[in-house]
Amino acid sequence: MKEIKIFTPATVANISCGFDILGLCLDTVGDEMIVREVPEKGIKLTKITGQKLPLETHKNVAGVAGLALLEEVDASVGYEIEIYKKIKPGSGIGSSAASAAGAVFAINELLGKPFSKQELIYFAMQGEKLASGSEHADNVSPVILGGFTLVRSYEPLDILKINSPNDLYATIIHPQIEVKTSDSRAVLKNQVSLKKMVTQMGNFGGLISGLYTNDYDLIGRSLHDEIIEPNRLVLIPEFDKVKKGVIQAGALGAGISGSGPSIFALSKGEETAKLVGKTMAEIYNNTDIDYDIHVSKINQQGIKIL
Amino acid sequence: MKEIKIFTPATVANISCGFDILGLCLDTVGDEMIVREVPEKGIKLTKITGQKLPLETHKNVAGVAGLALLEEVDASVGYEIEIYKKIKPGSGIGSSAASAAGAVFAINELLGKPFSKQELIYFAMQGEKLASGSEHADNVSPVILGGFTLVRSYEPLDILKINSPNDLYATIIHPQIEVKTSDSRAVLKNQVSLKKMVTQMGNFGGLISGLYTNDYDLIGRSLHDEIIEPNRLVLIPEFDKVKKGVIQAGALGAGISGSGPSIFALSKGEETAKLVGKTMAEIYNNTDIDYDIHVSKINQQGIKIL
Repeated sequence: MKEIKIFTPATVANISCGFDILGLCLDTVGDEMIVREVPEKGIKLTKITGQKLPLETHKNVAGVAGLALLEEVDASVGYEIEIYKKIKPGSGIGSSAASAAGAVFAINELLGKPFSKQELIYFAMQGEKLASGSEHADNVSPVILGGFTLVRSYEPLDILKINSPNDLYATIIHPQIEVKTSDSRAVLKNQVSLKKMVTQMGNFGGLISGLYTNDYDLIGRSLHDEIIEPNRLVLIPEFDKVKKGVIQAGALGAGISGSGPSIFALSKGEETAKLVGKTMAEIYNNTDIDYDIHVSKINQQGIKIL
Repeated sequence: MKEIKIFTPATVANISCGFDILGLCLDTVGDEMIVREVPEKGIKLTKITGQKLPLETHKNVAGVAGLALLEEVDASVGYEIEIYKKIKPGSGIGSSAASAAGAVFAINELLGKPFSKQELIYFAMQGEKLASGSEHADNVSPVILGGFTLVRSYEPLDILKINSPNDLYATIIHPQIEVKTSDSRAVLKNQVSLKKMVTQMGNFGGLISGLYTNDYDLIGRSLHDEIIEPNRLVLIPEFDKVKKGVIQAGALGAGISGSGPSIFALSKGEETAKLVGKTMAEIYNNTDIDYDIHVSKINQQGIKIL
């Protein structure tokens, strides 16, 4: 019986000035999945642990993404999927992306890799569409490519992997509150001033440059978001305090992960990243809100076969 | 008598999706300047050939930039400036930037280099303020640093040199028409849709990535401007025809140089860049408009001491 077991990682999208286009891949938090080839065609979710998620193929992001792939290949077999969920849905670190990307990656492996990584991203986006209503690529891309990824274009789909320094770490705090996607969209403004756009693009160019040239200081100077963050931060308790605190603790910068409620910080080196996590914890210990903290090197590989 | 003779190059700003922040330095078109130390303090313009430009220090961009520098240093001498102008004012390839940056570069050399290149950019911006009313850095930065430059931030001033491939060439056509700065500003919209901004930033990230990774194809895929160009192209005769024509001739992409009327194209290799120039010429030969064409490798050095 052909089967494959994978680790499919959590991700941070909307990295400060890289709203909607820049994401990164984590290493220490992610789901496990087992995908098994079976004689019956189609896709069947046979087991999900850790979270209550629908087992019906058409209602599950892994199922929908897998079906999108199978539509493009003449497979004489089908697949059973087991998901061991560790990423909490609604946390803002790419829970649906991990499942959708994991499914298409694993099926592609079992099929002998007929599809490119860009094609897998496209299939995984169909799972994202089920989860959020839009075929966005900013979380599934880092799951599949690893490292930092840039959505250069949707039409045609053109996803780039961006070089990043070896010693770069992310620290995430996930406050256990619900931020409704509808709220996080409602606070966004549809129009941006040309002046603010130019400021944002200067920082974005600086961030990309800092990643390519391993310039940690430049990464830090560029981690600003003058457009999205000022509108969304009201949805996240203690955001300002956490941001100031982690920068004082040595982080290069911080921002909202995805559309929240998680907050991410980037740091040079594991020691600083852990100290940053401690700082986040101390601030949230003064609230009634439960939280998880993750400290992770940037995962340059993406999904891993176990 | 201490004096220095320099070549101070023309530049392309507003490179497609890099509106207001991304510029590049040319090699085959630029002014020459002689700057001479004299006993009398202050700055004196003693000769300008090639163009009718004011000799009064306070009305000349080189004079104003030079004075900005002298304010910050305790010089017991003064400087005479001669400008042999070859860049035509109003062409959109940084005529005032070449003079302003040339003056501060040369004076800094004669003083024994007390100032950093970032500081010289700041002084040169004071000349730009005289020329256009705003202290913009997107032309003076490539004159002083060479290559491609990014204005990451104005407050504080933070200018980056961006790596670019060795075999990248620019072709410029300067149609001899006047585009008033007031017109080129008036057509801009103050507000941009968030959706268009995200598209523009995807392309900008792709362009910066292509420059760092020497990926000519990616540079070409990313040379789009969905925000400024659609509004400004009406000011430049035959813009659409030139853009389509040069891409057919093998250029990676094309756009408006500065705020026009010059049009730039980028190409891989000198042969293609020359063919692109021929294509531009053929299109303008069907009009009544005179033109100049420049084909230039990217000048990685900036100002050169002759």
